[in-house]
Amino acid sequence: MAETYAVINQKGGVGKTTTAVNLTACAALSGRKVLLVDADPQGNATSGLGVDRSILEQCLYDLLTDDSVLGPSAEAFNEVVVPTSIQNLSLLPATIDLAGADMALASVMSREAKLRQVLRAGAERYEVVLIDTAPSLGLLTINSLVAAQKVLIPIQCEYYALEGLSQLLEIIHLVQAQINPGLRIAGVILTMYDARTNLAAEVEAEVRANFPGRVFRTVIQRNVRLAEAPSYGMPAVVYDGNCPGSRAYWRLYQEVFGDAETSLGTRSESTHIG
Amino acid sequence: MAETYAVINQKGGVGKTTTAVNLTACAALSGRKVLLVDADPQGNATSGLGVDRSILEQCLYDLLTDDSVLGPSAEAFNEVVVPTSIQNLSLLPATIDLAGADMALASVMSREAKLRQVLRAGAERYEVVLIDTAPSLGLLTINSLVAAQKVLIPIQCEYYALEGLSQLLEIIHLVQAQINPGLRIAGVILTMYDARTNLAAEVEAEVRANFPGRVFRTVIQRNVRLAEAPSYGMPAVVYDGNCPGSRAYWRLYQEVFGDAETSLGTRSESTHIG
Repeated sequence: MAETYAVINQKGGVGKTTTAVNLTACAALSGRKVLLVDADPQGNATSGLGVDRSILEQCLYDLLTDDSVLGPSAEAFNEVVVPTSIQNLSLLPATIDLAGADMALASVMSREAKLRQVLRAGAERYEVVLIDTAPSLGLLTINSLVAAQKVLIPIQCEYYALEGLSQLLEIIHLVQAQINPGLRIAGVILTMYDARTNLAAEVEAEVRANFPGRVFRTVIQRNVRLAEAPSYGMPAVVYDGNCPGSRAYWRLYQEVFGDAETSLGTRSESTHIG
Repeated sequence: MAETYAVINQKGGVGKTTTAVNLTACAALSGRKVLLVDADPQGNATSGLGVDRSILEQCLYDLLTDDSVLGPSAEAFNEVVVPTSIQNLSLLPATIDLAGADMALASVMSREAKLRQVLRAGAERYEVVLIDTAPSLGLLTINSLVAAQKVLIPIQCEYYALEGLSQLLEIIHLVQAQINPGLRIAGVILTMYDARTNLAAEVEAEVRANFPGRVFRTVIQRNVRLAEAPSYGMPAVVYDGNCPGSRAYWRLYQEVFGDAETSLGTRSESTHIG
């Protein structure tokens, strides 16, 4: 079974999709077979990889709501997965249908484990699976925590960065206790760092103090190339592989998919690429 | 962990509670440490064992809705369990509060596995745990299927005996596939057999033809002592140990808790105690 990561923060605009798209692109460009699961009904990871949502006939929703007793078949899984323009990188896409998933799953058995069942149908072909999640703590996000082995938490270096974090950690704890005891926090990713402000440095210090040893050294700075890449349907690391944002994601990729225990550093070791 | 049986049939009046109360009494009288779990809001097993529901301060509901991350503690479990007048037989009682369980569990995580979590808190002290269930296929009954290792299905020897059975088997299949792969059907118990009618014999033949090798040889006949024992707060096997109903339950007890594989017979071997 592939190593499965969920990129989670119930706050919107913290860089979940940018992180998911660029980390999976780095992994694929490094020769790993990668699946990006778009578990956000907004579908920004889907369009950010250049996949036209309007022509998709099926998406993750259809697999989640497959009512076979044992869940969807490998064939059904492979029918929904689409290739991307990046070699080795496949996508389990989201269309607006996915907005109905929380409702559709509300009354089914093991409703928190449907995504895990979906991934068991076909994800063993991949080395890395990364799930991009919606800005909510609804059933779809719980499913992502149940399906994942590791959690990546992007935190924006802005006011109220830690807002909602204790609630997220409680949910992670609950999922560990009830359904997925193997779930681990891979680490916190500091995003949207603006080196020109004192605020960003203060937030960074606060986050590192709150999560000693659990914040990745690499800090993702605000970068216009990261912001504009999605409108070209490309990850930044493909759109402009040498911009500061892309270089930061390459470093982050090494940290996340290298030996995380040793690479997680403290504030004094943080790495800013400007 | 104790061997855990659920007595299930979503039809009412098929003898679930009579079976649960008498089988647990036989096991306790035989020297086994037994826990009867009353998972039916009607609480007939509770009152049938002589426990006054009106003075109970807590019941199964309180354990099911315990909101500790790891579920109720062993102390909390032991506070709710009450002794009965029969040595070795303890009761996890139901009050009318239990009627709110389906609603209370609807929105919680792993809502189908709450009873399993409750039993893990304290049931390891017992050798046999038997769950009496409500006449419904609601969340409480699903919880019983998730918590149990084996299912006992009482079927009344009347018209429409098999009605609803295919739905019950589907649910059992679903629970096996999704949550509790170890769940097994211990066997079907023919109840309320009236030897004076052709109908009873026809129903028995039909049930045995439909479930070859899975129907217990012992048939529980209609017996007034079985019907009146609950109003004295006693299992029939205690109230009148020598009536035909009690003798039938003793034989059934041997079949269920002996080697079920060899004791499950076909129609030609059936045992009627008259």
